[in-house]
Amino acid sequence: MIGHSFMGAVHSQAWRNVHRFFDVPLTPRMVVLGGRDEQRAKVAADRFGWDSVATDWRAIIERDDVDLVDICTPGDTHAEIAIAALEAGKHVLCEKPLANTVAEAQRMAEAAARADAKGVRSMVAFNYRRVPALALARKLVAEGRLGQLRHVRAVYLQDWLSDETSPMTWRLRKEQAGSGSLGDIGAHIVDATQFVTGEVITGVAGLTETFVRSRPGENGASESVTVDDCAVFHGRLSSGAIATFEATRYALGRKNAMRIEVNGSRGSLAFDFESMNELWFYDGDESGETAGFRRIVATEPDHPYVGAWWPPGHGLGYEHTFTHEIADLLRAIGSGQSPEPSFADGLRVQQVLEAVEDSASEASRWKQVEVSPT
Amino acid sequence: MIGHSFMGAVHSQAWRNVHRFFDVPLTPRMVVLGGRDEQRAKVAADRFGWDSVATDWRAIIERDDVDLVDICTPGDTHAEIAIAALEAGKHVLCEKPLANTVAEAQRMAEAAARADAKGVRSMVAFNYRRVPALALARKLVAEGRLGQLRHVRAVYLQDWLSDETSPMTWRLRKEQAGSGSLGDIGAHIVDATQFVTGEVITGVAGLTETFVRSRPGENGASESVTVDDCAVFHGRLSSGAIATFEATRYALGRKNAMRIEVNGSRGSLAFDFESMNELWFYDGDESGETAGFRRIVATEPDHPYVGAWWPPGHGLGYEHTFTHEIADLLRAIGSGQSPEPSFADGLRVQQVLEAVEDSASEASRWKQVEVSPT
Amino acid sequence: MIGHSFMGAVHSQAWRNVHRFFDVPLTPRMVVLGGRDEQRAKVAADRFGWDSVATDWRAIIERDDVDLVDICTPGDTHAEIAIAALEAGKHVLCEKPLANTVAEAQRMAEAAARADAKGVRSMVAFNYRRVPALALARKLVAEGRLGQLRHVRAVYLQDWLSDETSPMTWRLRKEQAGSGSLGDIGAHIVDATQFVTGEVITGVAGLTETFVRSRPGENGASESVTVDDCAVFHGRLSSGAIATFEATRYALGRKNAMRIEVNGSRGSLAFDFESMNELWFYDGDESGETAGFRRIVATEPDHPYVGAWWPPGHGLGYEHTFTHEIADLLRAIGSGQSPEPSFADGLRVQQVLEAVEDSASEASRWKQVEVSPT
Amino acid sequence: MIGHSFMGAVHSQAWRNVHRFFDVPLTPRMVVLGGRDEQRAKVAADRFGWDSVATDWRAIIERDDVDLVDICTPGDTHAEIAIAALEAGKHVLCEKPLANTVAEAQRMAEAAARADAKGVRSMVAFNYRRVPALALARKLVAEGRLGQLRHVRAVYLQDWLSDETSPMTWRLRKEQAGSGSLGDIGAHIVDATQFVTGEVITGVAGLTETFVRSRPGENGASESVTVDDCAVFHGRLSSGAIATFEATRYALGRKNAMRIEVNGSRGSLAFDFESMNELWFYDGDESGETAGFRRIVATEPDHPYVGAWWPPGHGLGYEHTFTHEIADLLRAIGSGQSPEPSFADGLRVQQVLEAVEDSASEASRWKQVEVSPT
Repeated sequence: MIGHSFMGAVHSQAWRNVHRFFDVPLTPRMVVLGGRDEQRAKVAADRFGWDSVATDWRAIIERDDVDLVDICTPGDTHAEIAIAALEAGKHVLCEKPLANTVAEAQRMAEAAARADAKGVRSMVAFNYRRVPALALARKLVAEGRLGQLRHVRAVYLQDWLSDETSPMTWRLRKEQAGSGSLGDIGAHIVDATQFVTGEVITGVAGLTETFVRSRPGENGASESVTVDDCAVFHGRLSSGAIATFEATRYALGRKNAMRIEVNGSRGSLAFDFESMNELWFYDGDESGETAGFRRIVATEPDHPYVGAWWPPGHGLGYEHTFTHEIADLLRAIGSGQSPEPSFADGLRVQQVLEAVEDSASEASRWKQVEVSPT
Repeated sequence: MIGHSFMGAVHSQAWRNVHRFFDVPLTPRMVVLGGRDEQRAKVAADRFGWDSVATDWRAIIERDDVDLVDICTPGDTHAEIAIAALEAGKHVLCEKPLANTVAEAQRMAEAAARADAKGVRSMVAFNYRRVPALALARKLVAEGRLGQLRHVRAVYLQDWLSDETSPMTWRLRKEQAGSGSLGDIGAHIVDATQFVTGEVITGVAGLTETFVRSRPGENGASESVTVDDCAVFHGRLSSGAIATFEATRYALGRKNAMRIEVNGSRGSLAFDFESMNELWFYDGDESGETAGFRRIVATEPDHPYVGAWWPPGHGLGYEHTFTHEIADLLRAIGSGQSPEPSFADGLRVQQVLEAVEDSASEASRWKQVEVSPT
Repeated sequence: MIGHSFMGAVHSQAWRNVHRFFDVPLTPRMVVLGGRDEQRAKVAADRFGWDSVATDWRAIIERDDVDLVDICTPGDTHAEIAIAALEAGKHVLCEKPLANTVAEAQRMAEAAARADAKGVRSMVAFNYRRVPALALARKLVAEGRLGQLRHVRAVYLQDWLSDETSPMTWRLRKEQAGSGSLGDIGAHIVDATQFVTGEVITGVAGLTETFVRSRPGENGASESVTVDDCAVFHGRLSSGAIATFEATRYALGRKNAMRIEVNGSRGSLAFDFESMNELWFYDGDESGETAGFRRIVATEPDHPYVGAWWPPGHGLGYEHTFTHEIADLLRAIGSGQSPEPSFADGLRVQQVLEAVEDSASEASRWKQVEVSPT
Repeated sequence: MIGHSFMGAVHSQAWRNVHRFFDVPLTPRMVVLGGRDEQRAKVAADRFGWDSVATDWRAIIERDDVDLVDICTPGDTHAEIAIAALEAGKHVLCEKPLANTVAEAQRMAEAAARADAKGVRSMVAFNYRRVPALALARKLVAEGRLGQLRHVRAVYLQDWLSDETSPMTWRLRKEQAGSGSLGDIGAHIVDATQFVTGEVITGVAGLTETFVRSRPGENGASESVTVDDCAVFHGRLSSGAIATFEATRYALGRKNAMRIEVNGSRGSLAFDFESMNELWFYDGDESGETAGFRRIVATEPDHPYVGAWWPPGHGLGYEHTFTHEIADLLRAIGSGQSPEPSFADGLRVQQVLEAVEDSASEASRWKQVEVSPT
């Protein structure tokens, strides 16, 4: 695994425990943790349970005892590491967003396709697909319980930048993060929309804004914020449904409100990650007298992933989505299949994000999203 | 009062009871009800408590014993009736949207301004301003409890058109209704946004869609739907805050979900008309340990309008917003002041709606909203 | 109508408007309002729309032009007035609790039965039966949608006495109010339980408490509180189901949380008056994957009473329960039937309340509730 | 650790990961897992990460390399194992309820007190104390934010026995389980009440019921259920506050609704484990205009335990309560302090449960709870 901050910690927890709960065909060995500062990497490796450390990611890729590389670094490094790892015959799990640009993502998707043909697998870590309630949502849509889809409204609301005086971070520098809320959290709702509906976004029109244009840097000096603080956009799905999106880190009081609501001709769904064990479902086939949005507590044994854990009502948390993700990845590798979401899926998200930026830079003009030929 | 269907019924209830609860300087007398079909008008007048009927609205305007004309007809008739009434020296209450076009609304606003100079008052019936929880929301914003505003997200979700086979109505004909969800319910969230924030919308980019393009007409023949089924748009407020809007009658399971959420640098607010007696408020000044969106049950005596009614927790309903509206109108007339929302406010809403339609017809391109000089 | 404070106001609103919305066989004429202070009664009559006033309730009962007497006075006066009115051949609507003692209630129920045999009707005003969501709840239970009932948990939580310094009122004097929270609000949940389940409470064990034993009286002097501040009790229904109850006016932050939850072998229901337009229903016949408590927004035309009012999602308020009550009363009178809840139903509530008090005075010992032979 | 079913699995997860997140002075080594069937124990040890297995718990206690014994077996075995382990100088973590009888619990508490004097620690595993939201609740009460306490209402609702045909389990046999819902889940709400309020329950009156008196046994024959299906009771806290309790496994649709609500003279709290990352707090000091129950999403760094995990809004799950429990236990051992909840706390819960059973067997008569002299 390369990188050991927030994402490194949660990925490690998943690698360490996945085989304790899921019948996976491969048992992870946590061989080496990559980090630029050796001392800090050692502390992290010890804490997270990795056997050794390396300060150069190339050294990790060259090791014979490494079968899979998990990339938890900022987006500007993804393409180089992932392509090299795939070419070295290592399976790759890559954090989202897949890359900072469509061009990079395109190269990654191509590399992934070539590797896949040789049995080398890759997956992009859109962990929200593994929230049981959202996996159930996708299942209900796929079964036709919603009928013809008409609306999606997806927002991802956080508030950690609300305070104008909070300090600069790499997430606010374009060269490292690629974009702001758009790539960081907007990517999640774009992917979740495509995942839950089983459709792709074919066009968008958007607006981005930077509310606070400079923040205190490391040595007290003011540093410019070079990414968006929020992005709002609307779009169309391949079926013709209308979707709206908003990603912001200025929604004071909303901590991690990744929400998606879908309306169809036969039913509707609503989800909010702040209550991640719940899915709300409106069944339009129900008689008018007793119809209503029902709160499905998605902790039953027959809900996706849940059977591996605790009894009904004993909810799961954020970290379990990563355990599910890695369980799925190991199962795919073990059974010789291509895991999802693929790098092509990651590219498709990137194409939507780029179209939003393009639209925002041209007075919200509509942009078709070029669907990659994969 | 002219018109006696849904709006006529609820306005009548308000006229009949307002002085039972509010200390208004004028006690309404319900003189004459206008309707094109005399027989049906008589039935309605009897039911709703009007003394007489008239089949020509001009006859009503000419009566000496009529001081105020309440217009509850479809939008295409508003301009003619309202302007004539104002010129005849009658105060006017006009249902929303103010008119079907900006041109009409402009003429109405001008007539209203002229009349107002002579003490003849006019008001457009955006009743949601009189929901106690929303009036409280405006108060909190005005007091600065939210700080610098950054986001508004406003949706109005209904589902009565979800069924593709439900019949044609006048609300789906452009010549009568002007527009579809945009003017019918989108108008409410545009006005509510401007009301709660105390700002105006300065530009928008939008998309409209008609999902079901024909419906069963009166004699079984299929009739074309000539208005939008939904409208989505984003915009900016005068302060620079970013706002998103959605109006639809296809959100299956949502009956009357007129929702607005506002995020500022110091606090946030959220409201949903399906729980109309509640306002959610996040106070960012609160310590992190105990901060949270608080559910204010807006039924306390010191909440707007509530003191006139029942004890705390004994909630109000939809119709009371009209009683409050008319109480405010009577007070303004009695005290020689100009009531709000004025026809100029109605015009401003109309200008936003037109900008949305213009944007939608030009691939979502951004449209500045021309702010009327009033 | 006799009495013109809170209950008088809300009953008047219902009498004034019932025929505007419901097709009732009799149109109310609001003949005379009774109140001990003539001046205050006149003000109230004028405000509420009564034609005349009387300072002696006996004068009202003797009037030929009075067909029905509506009793909105404190509980200690109910028996005398109601019995006299019934014996004078007047229909009677009596506020709850029916009386302050079982003995009084027994005499009233007997008088009502005698009168009923002559076509003179009586009803006790448990208005919560007329909340559409609760009427729907009863319907679902009656249809067997809940199967065998096992649990009821009913609470009525208010907070207006939380402040120890709030002043004395007649509701805190045993001689006028009979009891405290038990008779005032506990009566509602006892009746609602019997109404929704269609069963009777056959035994109880309880505890009462007075938290604040004296309060500031009218002239500043401290006055003793002689009623309970809260009552908690458990009991059994005739089917063997277990029920728990709590009535308090010290639940800080709960304004009018009259809640009832019922669990059966096939389904469950939950209701909270603070969200009075909602009924939560869990259908145990639903597959595990999509089962969940569904939020029924009880504002559809086919929900009880709702068709007379506004479109779906345009909620009703507290006062409408009284309009429904009076509509039902007028329909019963017009069609020669006995309305419900009858005085016998009121007596049954009184018997439960008395059993709770008896149990509380004997260390919570179980008390069978003597079921009246009616 | 002894026992390896549900509780064994979740305790193992905590032992395996606690030092990955918390700075604990001792790092667990998972030496030996006890289970009667060697083969099944080996499978479990392998899955959960234990080094070896033993079929006799005595062998575990005798091992020099075992410093702490974690007891996850049914309640009838707790006393013997725990006392032997403490006498052998092993720290003990014991699942709840502490024992099946007060006599056993008394002996255990005495053994624990003797051991504690020698630095051998013990803790009873009331894991709900370690839900961040409930730990925060206790903190707010302790700080006086609720003022004088007046009400507690605590329920623990599950539904896994609702189906009359579901099979017999050891939890329905008195000789193994001690009691039914009372000891299994009622114990949790009794402890949580005493924990959150910082008070003890001084008396109770209760009722228990067995709805389904026999169930399908292992070989198809019907087997008698010898424990309660539900228990309802009310009681008093040492401050005089009134508390109500209900424990049932027949509340259809409620999966793990462990709820507690506390009302005081200055504030109120409400919690529901089905939304375990939320605490609702009503601050009575707030002005009436903006007062309301606020939904505290208890995932901020300064909320109890949360700083060790993920960013705000990235919720925790059921299992984390055990990790917190073990972190606290290790810290107490490491710093030479007595951890909480102690066996004396467990005894106090047992005394309340016994009083409820005594009351239930004597027609709900009030029973003082003998407070143990610890």
